[in-house]
Amino acid sequence: MDRPMQDDQTSVADLRRVVQRFVAERQWERFHTPKNLSMSLSVEVAELMEHFQWRTPEESAAIAQDPELLTEVAHEMADVACYLLALSASLGVDLSSAIERKMVLNRKKYPADQCLGQWAPPKA
Amino acid sequence: MDRPMQDDQTSVADLRRVVQRFVAERQWERFHTPKNLSMSLSVEVAELMEHFQWRTPEESAAIAQDPELLTEVAHEMADVACYLLALSASLGVDLSSAIERKMVLNRKKYPADQCLGQWAPPKA
Amino acid sequence: MDRPMQDDQTSVADLRRVVQRFVAERQWERFHTPKNLSMSLSVEVAELMEHFQWRTPEESAAIAQDPELLTEVAHEMADVACYLLALSASLGVDLSSAIERKMVLNRKKYPADQCLGQWAPPKA
Amino acid sequence: MDRPMQDDQTSVADLRRVVQRFVAERQWERFHTPKNLSMSLSVEVAELMEHFQWRTPEESAAIAQDPELLTEVAHEMADVACYLLALSASLGVDLSSAIERKMVLNRKKYPADQCLGQWAPPKA
Repeated sequence: MDRPMQDDQTSVADLRRVVQRFVAERQWERFHTPKNLSMSLSVEVAELMEHFQWRTPEESAAIAQDPELLTEVAHEMADVACYLLALSASLGVDLSSAIERKMVLNRKKYPADQCLGQWAPPKA
Repeated sequence: MDRPMQDDQTSVADLRRVVQRFVAERQWERFHTPKNLSMSLSVEVAELMEHFQWRTPEESAAIAQDPELLTEVAHEMADVACYLLALSASLGVDLSSAIERKMVLNRKKYPADQCLGQWAPPKA
Repeated sequence: MDRPMQDDQTSVADLRRVVQRFVAERQWERFHTPKNLSMSLSVEVAELMEHFQWRTPEESAAIAQDPELLTEVAHEMADVACYLLALSASLGVDLSSAIERKMVLNRKKYPADQCLGQWAPPKA
Repeated sequence: MDRPMQDDQTSVADLRRVVQRFVAERQWERFHTPKNLSMSLSVEVAELMEHFQWRTPEESAAIAQDPELLTEVAHEMADVACYLLALSASLGVDLSSAIERKMVLNRKKYPADQCLGQWAPPKA
């Protein structure tokens, strides 16, 4: 990698290749079953959540202004992303395509005009 | 979106914009504190994990050959990705950059030559 | 069970027997590996958490005064308890004894006089 | 506590009192909202799951014969139990009663004769 990776210039496939290379160099493919990777995802999300469990919602938002804490949180977010990319590699799932298709369902379940400022979906 | 999104042609920033538009259209920004989003991430990962909890690791891998189940799993993966992107929007974290920097730490913690085929890091 | 079970008259072993009978009647023992049960625990905790993800901490406390929601939450808490009891059966762990011993460590890690009203442990 | 606690001689209410005393001595009640406690439960379950994520189901069962690992796992199980008890205190939920009532629903959803050795419920 010659220049730093950034979200506006990095494709999902680029990121997945970074993860796959790391896994291949360690011959970890046999550990990377979908079952195991879903557990790892959950473990990493918990490490992320640990930063927020005793903070109020307002205090959790203020982390954006605390460079040291934000770096720790960003590391946990990176771990979550890496396991999700590893899972997409393991199952052969194209994440962008999956998001696009799930969004169609989400728009039906949560019609914008009926959900404005409400977190619950409209009663069927 | 005129043509379908795919991982090799879609940047992380593109995906985040899809999520941010969905959130803005529903005025859900005030619910999207890092605390709440970390909980949502955990809830979605659990819905993903639910598909694997009683399957053996081998059976979990076989889902890749079952189109109906794979679609359900891909939907849950999309939900996980969307909440991670929402969190990166909420905290202003560049995911690609975070992954690149976390990988530097991972390579130190898990040196390839000492971790070959071993899931545990070398003893300090 | 002739009279309703209640926390002040029900031992942990009584509760575990209820769970073990349910599992044995369905011949589910072979699914109940510690790995699988830890996943089930995580899935059930997420179903519990789902009730709280978009509520503020104050709103989450107010659930105690909402009989319908409280029943739903109590059902999820029961599921969490059952999987924890199933895991203690699967591994042969006495929970009361484990709690007593863990509490010794917790009292050392969080000395009452240094932790008064503070959620973080004192710096080492 | 004069003699060691054990599951066959310890009521759920006894265990809850141990947890409540620990919380009260540190004046932590204000942190113990249901929202926060559900997050803590999830974090502790993840620490438990971490022991199993790369082990096969068979290897996870073998932990019962490894005293050192079993102690670590038992500590995590104790943490899960303590947060569940703290939540039951916070919401005023009687766990034994909740389990008894949830079991009635479980027996209907999973009729023993239709679920024998099958983890999925019968199709409606």
